[in-house]
Amino acid sequence: MATPHFGSDNVSGIASEILEAITSANGGGVGSYGGDGLTDSLTARFAEVFETEVSVLPVGTGTIANCLAVSFITPPWGAVYCHHDAHIMVDEANGPEFFSGGAKLADLPGDHGRLDVATVREAATAFPVDDLHHPMRAALSITQATEWGNIYSVPQVQALGDLCTELDMVFHMDGARFANAVAALGCSPAEVTWKAGIDVMSFGATKNGCMAVEALVVFGEKRKEFVKLQRLHKRAGQLFSKMRFFSAQLEAYLANDNWITWAAHANTQAKRLSQGVAAVDGVKLLHPVEANEIFLSMPIAVYDAMAATGFGLYPISPSGDGHGSIRLVTSFNSDPADVDTLVAAAQGA
Amino acid sequence: MATPHFGSDNVSGIASEILEAITSANGGGVGSYGGDGLTDSLTARFAEVFETEVSVLPVGTGTIANCLAVSFITPPWGAVYCHHDAHIMVDEANGPEFFSGGAKLADLPGDHGRLDVATVREAATAFPVDDLHHPMRAALSITQATEWGNIYSVPQVQALGDLCTELDMVFHMDGARFANAVAALGCSPAEVTWKAGIDVMSFGATKNGCMAVEALVVFGEKRKEFVKLQRLHKRAGQLFSKMRFFSAQLEAYLANDNWITWAAHANTQAKRLSQGVAAVDGVKLLHPVEANEIFLSMPIAVYDAMAATGFGLYPISPSGDGHGSIRLVTSFNSDPADVDTLVAAAQGA
Amino acid sequence: MATPHFGSDNVSGIASEILEAITSANGGGVGSYGGDGLTDSLTARFAEVFETEVSVLPVGTGTIANCLAVSFITPPWGAVYCHHDAHIMVDEANGPEFFSGGAKLADLPGDHGRLDVATVREAATAFPVDDLHHPMRAALSITQATEWGNIYSVPQVQALGDLCTELDMVFHMDGARFANAVAALGCSPAEVTWKAGIDVMSFGATKNGCMAVEALVVFGEKRKEFVKLQRLHKRAGQLFSKMRFFSAQLEAYLANDNWITWAAHANTQAKRLSQGVAAVDGVKLLHPVEANEIFLSMPIAVYDAMAATGFGLYPISPSGDGHGSIRLVTSFNSDPADVDTLVAAAQGA
Amino acid sequence: MATPHFGSDNVSGIASEILEAITSANGGGVGSYGGDGLTDSLTARFAEVFETEVSVLPVGTGTIANCLAVSFITPPWGAVYCHHDAHIMVDEANGPEFFSGGAKLADLPGDHGRLDVATVREAATAFPVDDLHHPMRAALSITQATEWGNIYSVPQVQALGDLCTELDMVFHMDGARFANAVAALGCSPAEVTWKAGIDVMSFGATKNGCMAVEALVVFGEKRKEFVKLQRLHKRAGQLFSKMRFFSAQLEAYLANDNWITWAAHANTQAKRLSQGVAAVDGVKLLHPVEANEIFLSMPIAVYDAMAATGFGLYPISPSGDGHGSIRLVTSFNSDPADVDTLVAAAQGA
Repeated sequence: MATPHFGSDNVSGIASEILEAITSANGGGVGSYGGDGLTDSLTARFAEVFETEVSVLPVGTGTIANCLAVSFITPPWGAVYCHHDAHIMVDEANGPEFFSGGAKLADLPGDHGRLDVATVREAATAFPVDDLHHPMRAALSITQATEWGNIYSVPQVQALGDLCTELDMVFHMDGARFANAVAALGCSPAEVTWKAGIDVMSFGATKNGCMAVEALVVFGEKRKEFVKLQRLHKRAGQLFSKMRFFSAQLEAYLANDNWITWAAHANTQAKRLSQGVAAVDGVKLLHPVEANEIFLSMPIAVYDAMAATGFGLYPISPSGDGHGSIRLVTSFNSDPADVDTLVAAAQGA
Repeated sequence: MATPHFGSDNVSGIASEILEAITSANGGGVGSYGGDGLTDSLTARFAEVFETEVSVLPVGTGTIANCLAVSFITPPWGAVYCHHDAHIMVDEANGPEFFSGGAKLADLPGDHGRLDVATVREAATAFPVDDLHHPMRAALSITQATEWGNIYSVPQVQALGDLCTELDMVFHMDGARFANAVAALGCSPAEVTWKAGIDVMSFGATKNGCMAVEALVVFGEKRKEFVKLQRLHKRAGQLFSKMRFFSAQLEAYLANDNWITWAAHANTQAKRLSQGVAAVDGVKLLHPVEANEIFLSMPIAVYDAMAATGFGLYPISPSGDGHGSIRLVTSFNSDPADVDTLVAAAQGA
Repeated sequence: MATPHFGSDNVSGIASEILEAITSANGGGVGSYGGDGLTDSLTARFAEVFETEVSVLPVGTGTIANCLAVSFITPPWGAVYCHHDAHIMVDEANGPEFFSGGAKLADLPGDHGRLDVATVREAATAFPVDDLHHPMRAALSITQATEWGNIYSVPQVQALGDLCTELDMVFHMDGARFANAVAALGCSPAEVTWKAGIDVMSFGATKNGCMAVEALVVFGEKRKEFVKLQRLHKRAGQLFSKMRFFSAQLEAYLANDNWITWAAHANTQAKRLSQGVAAVDGVKLLHPVEANEIFLSMPIAVYDAMAATGFGLYPISPSGDGHGSIRLVTSFNSDPADVDTLVAAAQGA
Repeated sequence: MATPHFGSDNVSGIASEILEAITSANGGGVGSYGGDGLTDSLTARFAEVFETEVSVLPVGTGTIANCLAVSFITPPWGAVYCHHDAHIMVDEANGPEFFSGGAKLADLPGDHGRLDVATVREAATAFPVDDLHHPMRAALSITQATEWGNIYSVPQVQALGDLCTELDMVFHMDGARFANAVAALGCSPAEVTWKAGIDVMSFGATKNGCMAVEALVVFGEKRKEFVKLQRLHKRAGQLFSKMRFFSAQLEAYLANDNWITWAAHANTQAKRLSQGVAAVDGVKLLHPVEANEIFLSMPIAVYDAMAATGFGLYPISPSGDGHGSIRLVTSFNSDPADVDTLVAAAQGA
């Protein structure tokens, strides 16, 4: 019997549709290293989803998706602007610097993990772009939804996209939880990506029901350099010999709007869970809940009551005065009954 | 209905035991990034197989296994000696040089993909080890079975291991087809690895029935530096968030000697296939068939007859005079009846 | 006839004692790549200056001194904390990231280019040191004198050194203007370096009268890893074949306390110049003048009057309202009469 | 009193014309980082010497010239073909691999350090250029004069240049002893470089009378990417702050055909020395003497007699039977009388 877990969306297993797709792909011999029918049709599938021509490569983890994306959008002497708390800044073990041959990850502040135009402009214009001594502005990377579970609106992305055009910077989106963002915005995938100026994205799938797959998606003019990304991808050990099993996951993920349905479910449960818990005395939301992540400050006693359910939770970080901060995350398969159980526990503390 | 394919072992799908293991692992929420029970028990499982303490990390492809292994066994200013046709030399898109920060891959000749002591010694002692100008000898890497489907005997590995000890070099084995080698040798995994001097190995599993998993296995003294390998592994995007599905593959692979059984089957079919085809007039074996790969020179007409079966084959490389060279590979799931069909086609040409 | 220049200390030529040393070193054939008598005695000379055993390597520029230092003090997965305006952060074209194989340069705020213990502690303890996802705290780098011409006192360095000991971080000093700092502090070189916890330093000489030479100086326990620095140094093209001409510069620089005398002169002229110019209406010092750099806000008209002397000045950066900001720098060979001329021009504006 | 030295051309000091140029450049303040008149005129000077438009950057050593050249001519996933004994292969401490981000240095055999078209063609066409698994052919590098003191004729360079054009490879010349080659060939610098297909060269000067300077010279179409080389150059710490003293060396080197005159002298003395020593019983030339390097096999007794002169010699490498192999090198300032003394010693053995 499975134990519910609200510590991360990575603790969830595989959605049954995805597992079936892997099983179905297991027919006879097919070409290796992507020379299979499933991989062949993947680009068309993504083009359909994004309503434009795209270039696509499946990869195994979000870390490598981000590392390859960064190495694709900047020369080694370039600067990539990102939020102070961005995954590419603090959660990829310096992989972005390594894979890019030493590019500068330049971190900037912003509420709830969001960057705004003024902050980026100031940093990106601090040095003349042709001065050999300084990091050369090269790219901007945003996370959608942000590391604090918040969402850039379409106009917010567009404004940053316009700045990138003005300053001749490549615009990257870390979309580890892109499905949650699209589900929350209710917009089309196109509107909040290439139509708003995004050139390259890390398209997440693992956190939202897949086993292990993300996609690098390239739009517009950057597609002309796609062969470079293919070289980087192979060199990083991401050209899986039995690629069909990764393409099959993405195919099933995109089929029937599964990805949006699952993310919408997770978002709904996060709303439900956060509202229930935040109603408890002494509990405070640290960030608005806009996707599937909830950041809270709460009395340790409330946490203890929740932990007593036996459900999986991440440890609380004590902040003094009997309080602590905690992250709760809902998933494609979070059971509303479990959410209710957790809320009840908190409210009964 | 599945089409038989004899072009590569990578064209095969997933063994049913492996697919079941993935499915079984799909229970409720468990810790991510390896904080799950399956990953916890993996090291003990490998220790049992190798009859000694080991340190183990699962990775997604053979390319990254080799890249991380090379970056673990040499400093950037070191030289890694390997065969001229070794995967780390010519098939990993310069990944070994990249991941190691620029180490020298120094290629050496040898029949059937094998290196011998004299050749390695001459290269490794060409320069004084403490001369700052030259690549510093650091490691030796051999492939077992070799790129030409041949196998190092235990004494051959031991002799190279002794040389590594003498010259203070780390000894790496690229074991992409290690199961085939062990099955052919009839020895224990220990005898032909750490007991013969191997420090680090790329332990293959994907080619022999898994979906996508290999293991980095570290023996003896090198285990003291294991934390470095963990850092390299995470940075390369190999710390899968849903690691349990990779550990589950390895667990099922090693269970019940599955890996040896499957490899032995592939080896047997390769013998059967090679003997049948080599009996045809004008067909010549380019290397002895000792594992599951067959390298042949044959009349184009014989190839055409084989291709007419509709089975998957790699294209033949014409060498003039109506002949060409071709690789045939058998797998854990090659059907003896298909082998017979292919042989009959060749013999009827 | 030489034109006085107050834009940088790099615009100055070579001190006559240094040029004579180069000329004197030009005897007959001597061993190349450092196999000469001058290089042999260099380590002893530095040991004398620093009153302790040291390991030393001459290099050609401050950029490469800093790049090699960073690559020596951190693994690729480490974080090096430094000031937001540090040269290693913004003036070395991402060289520190490149040479270190992708280490994180983590920038921190601080008045006048100085870091304090609380700021460094907070950043360095933000993540558990053994968590594989995050940059691992590895080193702290400070600039002495700072990029804004200010100086860490001995107790300030010591406090940061104690923190490095506590948190097991290597402590690096970028001493591009170390001579100016020592001259201003009136302390011994030892007191403000290894005695206060410095492990590795970039010892500047070019800005203070040499033609092109700096030294990497390693103290204490880090000396055990010196062979690694030698490998990095050769690989970076810093093992000059005619090394004697670089060692000769350093020898003459350290002889007779030349380096301190020259720096003290520059500091004195900076005081004189800054006091004279700051007395003008509307002129404001942006940072205290403690070494040989002066940062000012002034009316454009004052700048224009100074520029009318014909002396070399860097362009003023307009800040609106008829004002702008400007850097003035004095050198080992700044003529007091020229300083007076410049002051008079400013005061007559 | 100077001791003659025949071990290397690096053991020589600085030609008086070069030293005077450094001294003359030591006027007042001039722009730093190349913003000086001497550096401004350098490109025009090289254009005159090579009779075509060029792009030029001074660097401090041959090692970094080669490292930057390699990183300029290949992507990280490319292969650079070179001779088995080439400096970029074995004498730069893996710098070419490091600076290029992991490019493959693919070594090829050839008599006297020379490569021929057939050998390069075979290696460069071994894999399809667009196959993602293998190193992608990117560039060819030759050394002129070769590591064994031999010279490519103009037609030999041209034939390799034509191959590079055919296979779309960049063509690099390591010209550490380019002056000796031009002096020996009696051709124009243009004829044996860009007219014969060379795109990028490491132009040596240090071994032939300078203190410490080489130049990266870029021809033709590759000049369009020159800004990339400028970034790499700064990042490598080669943008000297007092650049005028490096430009001054190159200016004086090229003035009045000094470089050719000095190299011709060295070549003449090498002929004289090799003929005298080779006439001794038991002495054998290992390679034809075409420039300023002499490689000999000789009885140890002959070596001992030469060493008894007190002149500097490199140690002999014993090869058994009382013989050994030795390199002798002449320089711009080798005294004919010293050559005679050395010959007499050998002949008197």
